[in-house]
This record gives sequence, structure tokens and C-alpha cells, in this order.
Amino acid sequence: MKTLIEAIRPTTFVESEKLSRLLNTDVTLVSETFQHTGSFKFRAAYNLALNIPNDEILTASSGNFGQALAFACQLLNKKCTVVMPETSAKVKIEAVRSYGAMVDLIDTRSVGRAERVLQLAEKMPDAYLASAYDDLLVIEGNSTLGDEIAHYKKDFDVVIVPIGGGGLISGISQGLCRNGHRARLVGAEPLLGNDASRSLKAGRIIKNEREPQTLADGARTVSLGEHNWKVIEKGVVDILEISEEKIAEGVRVLFSYANLKVEPTGALSLGAVLEDSEKFADKKVCAVVSGGNVDAEIYRRIIA
Amino acid sequence: MKTLIEAIRPTTFVESEKLSRLLNTDVTLVSETFQHTGSFKFRAAYNLALNIPNDEILTASSGNFGQALAFACQLLNKKCTVVMPETSAKVKIEAVRSYGAMVDLIDTRSVGRAERVLQLAEKMPDAYLASAYDDLLVIEGNSTLGDEIAHYKKDFDVVIVPIGGGGLISGISQGLCRNGHRARLVGAEPLLGNDASRSLKAGRIIKNEREPQTLADGARTVSLGEHNWKVIEKGVVDILEISEEKIAEGVRVLFSYANLKVEPTGALSLGAVLEDSEKFADKKVCAVVSGGNVDAEIYRRIIA
Repeated sequence: MKTLIEAIRPTTFVESEKLSRLLNTDVTLVSETFQHTGSFKFRAAYNLALNIPNDEILTASSGNFGQALAFACQLLNKKCTVVMPETSAKVKIEAVRSYGAMVDLIDTRSVGRAERVLQLAEKMPDAYLASAYDDLLVIEGNSTLGDEIAHYKKDFDVVIVPIGGGGLISGISQGLCRNGHRARLVGAEPLLGNDASRSLKAGRIIKNEREPQTLADGARTVSLGEHNWKVIEKGVVDILEISEEKIAEGVRVLFSYANLKVEPTGALSLGAVLEDSEKFADKKVCAVVSGGNVDAEIYRRIIA
Repeated sequence: MKTLIEAIRPTTFVESEKLSRLLNTDVTLVSETFQHTGSFKFRAAYNLALNIPNDEILTASSGNFGQALAFACQLLNKKCTVVMPETSAKVKIEAVRSYGAMVDLIDTRSVGRAERVLQLAEKMPDAYLASAYDDLLVIEGNSTLGDEIAHYKKDFDVVIVPIGGGGLISGISQGLCRNGHRARLVGAEPLLGNDASRSLKAGRIIKNEREPQTLADGARTVSLGEHNWKVIEKGVVDILEISEEKIAEGVRVLFSYANLKVEPTGALSLGAVLEDSEKFADKKVCAVVSGGNVDAEIYRRIIA
């Protein structure tokens, strides 16, 4: 059984002269697109599955956390059930199944995801209910990426991180902090679902009224998690709101200037630089790319 | 002035469970898509520009070598002139110019590339005429990738490398050889321009009648270089001929299963596995991805 550090792949640091010239900023990409299952979520999922006593885990995820948890459970020989809307992309459902997990398909018009998870939990009293972000083990798993950024040869002035539920940025905050790294930690979330930005200004969690229908599907969250918020309110200096246009432009720019295939959520951090590159001029910027899983058709439309 | 090893970026090793499961083969990708200027050519270009006494270099290239040489010359403060067909993609012409090189645009209907280079060479008696592959300094530069493959934690049984003029595979052969690595070295070239495969069978260089119009534009070469051939005939055990269909499928599979954006030439090595995956079953395969520079419109068509 591998430890967390043995199980994860080190992140991929990508530098591109073309990109830095375009933005007139020294940008280093920290890409989790080649992490196991194609996103940072594997760090969290493996740490969680490794450290809980339960042999059975239950979660709701139509996206990267489902795949990551399914694979982590396969490696650790645990049972995994993932609740997914029946409208999820077939390739995502198949990916979760290919890692040996049970997929529970629901019609979201008749039953909510959270509701269905509770129904299943009653039938599976020994199962651990896993949140994709609001869990100390998730934060701890993701903190390994903060360690890697802190140990990189370049001393970053700013680290920009995509925000949905806040799992990644709270982990990176912990990782940077324990290494004494003094970079300014900045979040990037879709303008369409700007609850984290509003929360940081208000000093308390503020929720979106509904799931924001942003292109950045990994950030379609209603609010930050409680555990995440506690870290974010202390460790994050600013949260930038990124327009849908700049998210798409981020995907295109990463394709053309850095040869990097990213999913829209992963492009939020570069979108932040595109929104206001003046703000980052003369800074050593680290832009975290959270994942690369995107359907070919959506990708084709974006890079057109 | 940086040494070659200081100047190049280490290659990116990418493993993907999804990909290995799909192919039923243990495949590790060795990706040069994040090398300076987006392809392995920078290794060769920098080594050449660093080691010749001339302050001026002249080459003909519509592709990756032109960009790589322009950037190497910028770093080393040398003058660089790149002959390109006026029909080259604007973005490629701009890329070469952005690295400070002079671009000499020609109408290939009225003057051949080689002819134009000779015309210019007469006017520039102190310039070094650089071949993108047929040069010992090019081979030596590319051999650094062989060193990296030899030192990787996994002991590969087979290393598959795209072939055009033979610059990359001859370099990798040298690198593997001097490290005592015993992997079988296999080339992958487009079926449409199968001169290298025919040469290996015949035991002497055989040329294509004309530049093959393959999707793999980095392999539109008429024949192997003389210097490359001397290494290839001893060090390469087989050269596989890849159909256009499998080249495109390689690009798609790398997009969907490995989150890797590659140019068609870079997908030749995976195309070889797709052509005949039985041949590689139970082997530890290293597939070299030579570069990632591809126009968005061509890429969109391929991944459709």
C-alpha cells in the first residue's frame, strides 16, 4: 500500500517564453493535467481513502472527484459508489466504471444529488460520505501541491488557484504556509458564480442562489466548504472574478502558447491574468492548472 | 552563456492508466511538447549554435527547426536567417520573427528552398548552413533525450521514435547506446513517405520521389540524412510505416486518454502502437512525442 507521496505523481511545471511574452509577465504553469485521472483531485481522493477506517466510500460527483476516488479505491482495494446525474457525459460514467466503482445514475429532476446520497447512506451504514472539498483529509491531500510549489526552483510572488468549493486553494494555502512560503495566494472563480469573492469581502460564507451555469464545470458549486473557508479567510488575499469569455480565452491561449490541453476550470487561473495583466506585471506568477478533462466537442468549440 | 544541459528543459514523462488500459500495453510518453519552442528541435539548434564559431546561421525551415534555431540564436546572441515558403502559416512566420530572426520568404513555384539557401549563402560567406537533421551537432544535441530516457526510473523494452530526416532517432540511439541501455529502438514514419523503412530493408539510403504530403508535416522529408543513416543502420531494429488514419487517431487518443496536445508528427510513435498493439503487448513501451505545435484549425479537424 503506497503512502500518499508515493501514490501521487509530482505536478508538471510548464514554462513558455511565448506565453510570458504575450502576457508581459513571468508565468509558470503548474499543471495537474497529467496527475492520475487527469486532475488534482487524486491527491485528495487517495489521502481520504487511505486514512479512513471504512472499507466503503460514497460520493456524489459528475466530474473529476468521482474518477479520482474510484481509482484511489481501486488501488486501495475499497468499495466505491459514485452518484451521477444520468445526463452526465457517457465517457465520464464509463471512466468511473472502468476504475471498478459502482455508478448510481439519478434523474436530477426527480431527486437531488445530496438527497440520493442520504438515501444510499441509509442502506450503506458502514460507508464514508466523501465530500469533494469539505473534508480535512481532502485539504491535507491537496496540500502536497502546495509543498511542490514551495520547493520549486523559482520563488513565486503570486500563486493563482481556481476556486469551486475551495478544496484546492485551502490545501495549497496549508502547503505554502508550512514551508514558510510568502507568495500572495489569489483565487480565481467564475464571475457567474462569485460566492467565494463575495464571501471573502463579507468575512463569512455567502452562497450562490443556485449552481452557476459556467463553462468551468468544476466550479459549479453553491458555496465554499466550512473547512475550506476557515483556511481561505486567513490565507487567501484576493479572489478574482473571471468572465466566461476570459475562461475560454485562457483555454485557447494555453493551447496555442503553451501546448497545454486544459479543461475550462483549469484555465481560471490564466483567465485571471488575461482579465488584468497589468496587475501581474513584473511579478513571478504561478498559475495552477487544476485539470485537463474536457470533452472533445466542447474543446473544439472553445479553440475555434 | 548556458551549456546545452543548462539550456534545455528536461523532457516530460507522462503515464496514463487509461491509455495503457486502452492499448493493453504499458506505455510511457516522453513528451517534448513543453521543450523550448514546443519541440525537441531546440536541443539540436542550441547545441549547433553554441558549438560553431560562426556568428551567423542560415537555414531553410517552415517548421519547428526554424523557431528553435531562431530562439537558440537569440539566447546566444547570433544572427539567424530562416528561409520559409511564403505560403507558411502566418503564426509560424511570426513565431520565427518574434525570436529576432530574419525571415526570407520565397515563392516555391519560382525558386526551390535549397536553391534559395545557396543564393543567400553566397551573399553571406560567414554564415553556417544549418541542416535540421544531417549534422553531427544536431545529432549530439538530440542525444540528450536518449540520456534522459536511459536514466528514467522505468527500464523500457522498446523505444519508438518519429522519423523524418532521422535527426531525433539517431540522437536517441547515441544517447541510449552510451548509457548501455538495451531497449529495442524502433522508428515510426508515415506510410506515405516510407523511405526510411525501405532504406533499412535495402541497407542503403533510398529516397522518396518527392516530399510526401502527409499530415505529419515534420516528416515531409525526401530522405534520411547521411550522418543520420550511419547511426540508424546500426542502432535501429525496425521502422514501422504509419497510415494517415493512425496518425490522426494517435492525436485523438493522446487528447482523450492522456490530456496531451501533440502535433501529427509527434503522434507517429503512438500511431505505431495503434497499428499493431499485439506487437507491443507485455512490453514496457516508451513512445517519444516529438512536438506539440499544430494550428488550431487542423487540430480541430483531427479531434472531431
